[in-house]
Amino acid sequence: MNKGIIFFILGRLLIVEGVFLLISAAVSAIYGEQDYIYFLEIALINFIIGGLSWFSARNTERKLGKKEGYIVVGFVWIIFSLFGALPFVLSGAIPSYTDAFFETMSGFTTTGSSILNGIQIDNLHYGIHFWRSITQWIGGMGIIVMALAIFPLLGIGGQQLFVAEVPGPTKDKLHPTIKQTAKSLWGIYILFTAIEVILLYLGGMSFFDAVCHSFTTMATGGYSTKGDSIAYYDSSYIQYVIIIFMFLAGLNFTLSFYALKFKWKKIIQNEEFKFYVFFILIFSGLITIFLVFLHDKEVFKSIRDSLFQVVSLMTTTGFATVDYTMWKGFIVVLAFILMFIGGSAGSTAGGIKVVRILLVIKNIYLELRRTIHPNAVIPIRYNKHSVNQKTINNIMAFITIYVLTFVLGTVVISAFGYDLDTAMGAVAATLGNIGPGIGDVGPASNFGFFPDTAKWFLSFLMLLGRLELFTILVLFSKSFWKA
Amino acid sequence: MNKGIIFFILGRLLIVEGVFLLISAAVSAIYGEQDYIYFLEIALINFIIGGLSWFSARNTERKLGKKEGYIVVGFVWIIFSLFGALPFVLSGAIPSYTDAFFETMSGFTTTGSSILNGIQIDNLHYGIHFWRSITQWIGGMGIIVMALAIFPLLGIGGQQLFVAEVPGPTKDKLHPTIKQTAKSLWGIYILFTAIEVILLYLGGMSFFDAVCHSFTTMATGGYSTKGDSIAYYDSSYIQYVIIIFMFLAGLNFTLSFYALKFKWKKIIQNEEFKFYVFFILIFSGLITIFLVFLHDKEVFKSIRDSLFQVVSLMTTTGFATVDYTMWKGFIVVLAFILMFIGGSAGSTAGGIKVVRILLVIKNIYLELRRTIHPNAVIPIRYNKHSVNQKTINNIMAFITIYVLTFVLGTVVISAFGYDLDTAMGAVAATLGNIGPGIGDVGPASNFGFFPDTAKWFLSFLMLLGRLELFTILVLFSKSFWKA
Repeated sequence: MNKGIIFFILGRLLIVEGVFLLISAAVSAIYGEQDYIYFLEIALINFIIGGLSWFSARNTERKLGKKEGYIVVGFVWIIFSLFGALPFVLSGAIPSYTDAFFETMSGFTTTGSSILNGIQIDNLHYGIHFWRSITQWIGGMGIIVMALAIFPLLGIGGQQLFVAEVPGPTKDKLHPTIKQTAKSLWGIYILFTAIEVILLYLGGMSFFDAVCHSFTTMATGGYSTKGDSIAYYDSSYIQYVIIIFMFLAGLNFTLSFYALKFKWKKIIQNEEFKFYVFFILIFSGLITIFLVFLHDKEVFKSIRDSLFQVVSLMTTTGFATVDYTMWKGFIVVLAFILMFIGGSAGSTAGGIKVVRILLVIKNIYLELRRTIHPNAVIPIRYNKHSVNQKTINNIMAFITIYVLTFVLGTVVISAFGYDLDTAMGAVAATLGNIGPGIGDVGPASNFGFFPDTAKWFLSFLMLLGRLELFTILVLFSKSFWKA
Repeated sequence: MNKGIIFFILGRLLIVEGVFLLISAAVSAIYGEQDYIYFLEIALINFIIGGLSWFSARNTERKLGKKEGYIVVGFVWIIFSLFGALPFVLSGAIPSYTDAFFETMSGFTTTGSSILNGIQIDNLHYGIHFWRSITQWIGGMGIIVMALAIFPLLGIGGQQLFVAEVPGPTKDKLHPTIKQTAKSLWGIYILFTAIEVILLYLGGMSFFDAVCHSFTTMATGGYSTKGDSIAYYDSSYIQYVIIIFMFLAGLNFTLSFYALKFKWKKIIQNEEFKFYVFFILIFSGLITIFLVFLHDKEVFKSIRDSLFQVVSLMTTTGFATVDYTMWKGFIVVLAFILMFIGGSAGSTAGGIKVVRILLVIKNIYLELRRTIHPNAVIPIRYNKHSVNQKTINNIMAFITIYVLTFVLGTVVISAFGYDLDTAMGAVAATLGNIGPGIGDVGPASNFGFFPDTAKWFLSFLMLLGRLELFTILVLFSKSFWKA
């Protein structure tokens, strides 16, 4: 194990976090808030510790193996959250370190579950709002690179499959193409964020709120500067803009790459894209029908509300325009299912991901055919290529672990004394990096009432979900540390 | 397709059902009830239709292929329920045919979900009670033969693996060994039933009730002659006797076969057995602790209550001594998980089955190791033999279909206007052939309030679960009917 390279990379990343803390300090200062001093302090700590870590490993060999890759990926989110929580505590915005850590982990993992209630959110200072939003934006940046350049090389959850050809990584080495891949993808990420800022600003949102909401939309994070989330803006224009950008953020970023090069055919032929759109339409359609006929709601508002909620939950953003837990059981069930499907692979969305659901359905269909014709050799095809059985196994194992984690997580949370719905909701929302859940953690509520131990546990689930389970779980396996 | 053999077998089976209807007529007559006439009428119809079907195919070739096997297995439960529902309707015990069909399907599939409330059950006539109980006993007999002799040959859900060597089927032909296998297994089934009757009778239960409860225990069915189920008997002796026989019924019958030949080593070394016991102990232990510390219950009563509920739910029997939905969320969560685990393969229990859970956990562990060492060839081992990947795929597909059916079923039931818990509970309870669920279909309630369409749908789920999904699903596949 090359420990040096781990310190080298983590050190550099801590410095990057320090830079974002400096930006937050600047925002704080611009709005005349005293909090800037705390941001400066923590930035300084980041620079010192990051610098020392980097410096200590300056002569190390620049070779990142698979194991070192796992360790870096697993630890960067934890370290970022450990440091990133401090401004919340020092400024008094979130006095408890546990709460602050939960909020920060929820930020960096682009989950968006909050321990703050509506009034507390409305009372946050600008600098704190900015830091809270930008943790999600940083997390989104991180996950795009992970999903499209690093996970495939680590062989995680069938990810090899989800990478389109263009800015993809080469087979053996981590380093060379990552920079180039990252640059293309971040270009798109920043471009989309910028366009959303402009569109939201044109819709009457303040510039500050437009920036914060764009950060958290593109990251499919869901933190809002308003206690009422997007319901605060009684503007169908703003809601539709956010629907569109949540949709884009939940799309494989290589597809956006094609879109910018006008290669529409590549997009339309992509099977995951088709299913992504299909799921959104079918769920919004069903919910709209129920809203109109069972809740006697107005048609166009129902379409917008259901589309917003469906896209928000499926992309695991978690913005709210209505409290869906107040709707009839059927809609709650659909909302809950959406939390598991998740967005596309290679996006900033969490959850199981559309492509995995799609391949599992194909596998079921095939297994039925194999039952009838046990000797027939029928491969699974995805995007016109046949998928090998190893990848399918990998995906099946991923989904099984996801479901098992959900089940065990629900047991743990219910052991703290919560009912089935709340326990399931809290676990699905954190593991899927969504934000709000069902039961007592619906969009009108928050996670503040959980005891500290439960908060640490839920933070762990966020990390587990964000890093596609395997990355974290292998760190717990004996054979990882042995050979 | 050899249609003749299908008519031949189904005809004979209808006559068998007719014989059981005659027995019920006799019971009815012995207790001086007028209902015997209805049983006679339906028995007559069974004999005529069954006889005609048999007679029409008397010259057919006695060769049962795989496809014909699927059709016979799929249809026998439906036909049995269609005819078996009639005595309930004619006698006025259950006036609605839909309700009667639900009750009969719930019987033959050994589910035990009832549309009758406690008072209605207490008021049933002896003959009707007997018929209601014996449908489960017949269903249990049927499923043992299916699970240990027919499913493995049809290649369903990895079943090949679960058959121990002794009374197992040969590879290619269905006919020759089935009779022999069936005889050994039914011998054990009848023996255990008889012993339970004696033990319950010695414990103070009336002979009639002892017979009915033994029928429904060994079938892991769960119909009771008492509206309060086993809670009616405030006797720890009776409850422990039932716990033991539920445990035996949820065990692979080939293990009981070994036990009767004193081959203890075979049993103790069986991995599914170990996990079956392990699950029971861990769940009962956890629930006992919560009952004692959180509900301030008495220790020995808590042990008995939790053991009874755990064994009852895990073996998918569904007898109740307490209403677990009244306990804290944590216990409800554990109870709900038990509904999915199910008993052992090759038993009368429903659910996913312990061995499948076990193999999936092994597969997950292996997939993690494969992530670290992608080129290592590591097979999964079960009972000291290595399991081929095809079987693992089959099992993974089974579990995925199970979970998907549960999710879609929950959507359907919630669309009738029920809340998440009730919808999940009703679907888990019917698909898993358990009986009571959670939410509004807990052990103190029943399924009578559902609209007719929902009852037909839930009846379908019972059938789907009972026949290990594949058997029914292949009948819906185009390629089944084509080639």
